[in-house]
Amino acid sequence: MPEITRTLARFVVDSHFIDLPAHVRHAGTRAFLNWFGCAIGGSRHETVERAWAARSGFAGEPQVTLIARGGRTDLLTGACMNGIAAHVFDFDDGQPRNTNINPSAAVAPAPLALGEHLKSRGADVLHAFILGLEVECRIANAVYATDNARWFTNSTTGVFGAAAAAGKLLGLDERQMTWALGIAATQSSGLRISFGNMCKSFNCGRAAENGLLAALLAQRGFTSSDRAIEAPRGFAQVFLPGSDPSPIVERLGAEYEVTYAICKPFACGVVLHAAIDACIRARETHGFDPRWIEKVVLRVHPIVTQITAIREPATGLESKFSVFHVGALGLLDGAAGEAQFSDRRAADADVIALRRKVEAVPEPAFRRDQAHVRVVMQDGSAFETHVEHAIGTLQNPLTDAALEAKFRSLAAGILEERESDAAIDLCWHLEALDDFSHLPRTAAGRMEETHV
Amino acid sequence: MPEITRTLARFVVDSHFIDLPAHVRHAGTRAFLNWFGCAIGGSRHETVERAWAARSGFAGEPQVTLIARGGRTDLLTGACMNGIAAHVFDFDDGQPRNTNINPSAAVAPAPLALGEHLKSRGADVLHAFILGLEVECRIANAVYATDNARWFTNSTTGVFGAAAAAGKLLGLDERQMTWALGIAATQSSGLRISFGNMCKSFNCGRAAENGLLAALLAQRGFTSSDRAIEAPRGFAQVFLPGSDPSPIVERLGAEYEVTYAICKPFACGVVLHAAIDACIRARETHGFDPRWIEKVVLRVHPIVTQITAIREPATGLESKFSVFHVGALGLLDGAAGEAQFSDRRAADADVIALRRKVEAVPEPAFRRDQAHVRVVMQDGSAFETHVEHAIGTLQNPLTDAALEAKFRSLAAGILEERESDAAIDLCWHLEALDDFSHLPRTAAGRMEETHV
Repeated sequence: MPEITRTLARFVVDSHFIDLPAHVRHAGTRAFLNWFGCAIGGSRHETVERAWAARSGFAGEPQVTLIARGGRTDLLTGACMNGIAAHVFDFDDGQPRNTNINPSAAVAPAPLALGEHLKSRGADVLHAFILGLEVECRIANAVYATDNARWFTNSTTGVFGAAAAAGKLLGLDERQMTWALGIAATQSSGLRISFGNMCKSFNCGRAAENGLLAALLAQRGFTSSDRAIEAPRGFAQVFLPGSDPSPIVERLGAEYEVTYAICKPFACGVVLHAAIDACIRARETHGFDPRWIEKVVLRVHPIVTQITAIREPATGLESKFSVFHVGALGLLDGAAGEAQFSDRRAADADVIALRRKVEAVPEPAFRRDQAHVRVVMQDGSAFETHVEHAIGTLQNPLTDAALEAKFRSLAAGILEERESDAAIDLCWHLEALDDFSHLPRTAAGRMEETHV
Repeated sequence: MPEITRTLARFVVDSHFIDLPAHVRHAGTRAFLNWFGCAIGGSRHETVERAWAARSGFAGEPQVTLIARGGRTDLLTGACMNGIAAHVFDFDDGQPRNTNINPSAAVAPAPLALGEHLKSRGADVLHAFILGLEVECRIANAVYATDNARWFTNSTTGVFGAAAAAGKLLGLDERQMTWALGIAATQSSGLRISFGNMCKSFNCGRAAENGLLAALLAQRGFTSSDRAIEAPRGFAQVFLPGSDPSPIVERLGAEYEVTYAICKPFACGVVLHAAIDACIRARETHGFDPRWIEKVVLRVHPIVTQITAIREPATGLESKFSVFHVGALGLLDGAAGEAQFSDRRAADADVIALRRKVEAVPEPAFRRDQAHVRVVMQDGSAFETHVEHAIGTLQNPLTDAALEAKFRSLAAGILEERESDAAIDLCWHLEALDDFSHLPRTAAGRMEETHV
């Protein structure tokens, strides 16, 4: 077995910003902008409120911004809190090529917090973020198993990405970086049963914090195994027995995983996007009245029926894991933004009536970004729509302008318009920022005191 | 599948201190005294120094005592730091009946910190601690697999115990306690490759902190799965596929796991104690000169050669995972306290020469507390010693007086003698303490500033 952990550490340590091609830097900038908008949008969510109520009494000095919450907290608490906020809508990003993880979720909070605390250059934060995504996605590619999905791979592999990103900003040497990855490995956690409850976004925030802590510990000479990923009882064998970790370090630097990340157009798991897109397009194309629908047959990749099969979601959060519910939303609302995934919508009589008419058929021949919907009306007429590549995929990505629009809609009612504009502008010019801390401070927001 | 998680939560919530028989309370008191001594003994270890150097800049208000370090920190950081200190010598406790976990390691730091912060009654802290051990050990019994040891069960199951103990002190209701266990489940982590490096004790401290955070979150209504342990992709199935979680809730309250916990006589894993005891007894019984030993054949339970087989340990920490090294220590020093597990001893020429003569033979017919040593001298003479039940086992436990002696030896040079005496006295009278915070404050210690 080659030295996986150390090789990965060496790659991160030896990487220079100038090594990154322009299209990689642009993809990283888009990913950061997209994630940052989500952190603003989720900042007032009940999940965030409760986490803050539980933790604030034990937090340290005000070192970093609690995005859009009008407050500051210590570095570690900040990484966790902003990480919860950014993933709580499940509206962030995706990595459809090999896994369906949300790459930024458990990585970005670490360089965000550390970059602000250290007043790093924007280019260094962007660089660390891109490398963190690289480490995370390479490990995820090796241990992600669709047929036996037990782990929440965002957090189980995101912790490595956060450690790598934080370690890069801290300037760790190869030995320290190896330990940072090892300390990340032994903190790796997150179960898939967190889907549909507050633990899902918590896992992301906490993984980012755990990775950040791993890098801080390694900086002080805190040791771990030097072969934490590839050892016989190391991370890869434990998380996916029989897996081969060698590809983790193959062709390092030849291409970058961030270029395969997508920004989500809908506020739920990527796994559902083709189905939603099919329903929205069917509605737009055929103009039927959803009240007279008799039956809806959705043909989808088998993973859809495997992990999003909640038949009767009771809450907005649960409704993000129901292919039946999102099909109904697409047909009724022609949209699937955060507004659609409310508790109110989950309990709406029209939505419930329609989602009970939705059937989901696993189609092994389909790609994940493919879907087909057949809508049968009570009068016997039927409409079909086929989606070859869902909106927001690599083949059909959101434009930069659409990304900005998504950011603005997430920030609406939370930041003032001029603050949103300024934050977007700083994100696009991340590479040129002398002091990264301007960006989080621009999006600090103001907030009434709230109590849970 | 019965409701495991909720049933366990209900048991903890409904338990009354008066339900606990006197021998259970005494066993709990012994376990706490033993663990607390270890927290004092490990307080100045390099592992603790480095962890503190990494974390102190981000810690909150001085809410709880950093045991024997002359300082205070916030509740969460305190739980982690004291947890690292108490396990760093691997001298704490054991649970030889079903698993070889150290039950107090990832549990005790949570009620210690919260009991001090809340100024709880001593009886409530003892009660919470005993219930935490109960939850942890019952889960460990269900998922501990000796034949495929991948996880560090101290931390993977200790996080549940810490959550239960903290939740009990916080007065969580059944629903909140169920969530606390669920939030613990999704944070459960710790790999066995942490053995022999600083991550082993870190896993224990961090698991205690994670469990404490889980309870604090649940108190604020932070949700998780209600079936985190028993769900198809829940904790039990993920951590040991095919395991049966039903026994976790069988005969709850009929007996208590703490009565099966042992206090360690030697500063390394319980797994090695019979081998050490055999070597010490052989030395005492036969009075040979170790310089003229030709060969040592140790017959041991197969797990010994499986998990403590480092042939040439380079550091004191590594030497705790070498059956060859501890055999040599027993024969040369007649002891295996923390002093024996130094870097200096690991590199000592006499120890190295002797440990190279030690052979370890797995003996499937042996219990874990059984060992046999045959010492062959260069003149052809040979001596044999058989240990039926090693010192420190349930059949051959340390007396209360021996426990006090262990505490004093751990505290020597760290606390003043009168402070040790006072702490021991408060531990024995834990049940009667009106304000538990007196105990950690008594062992607060003083310390010069150190820098790593």
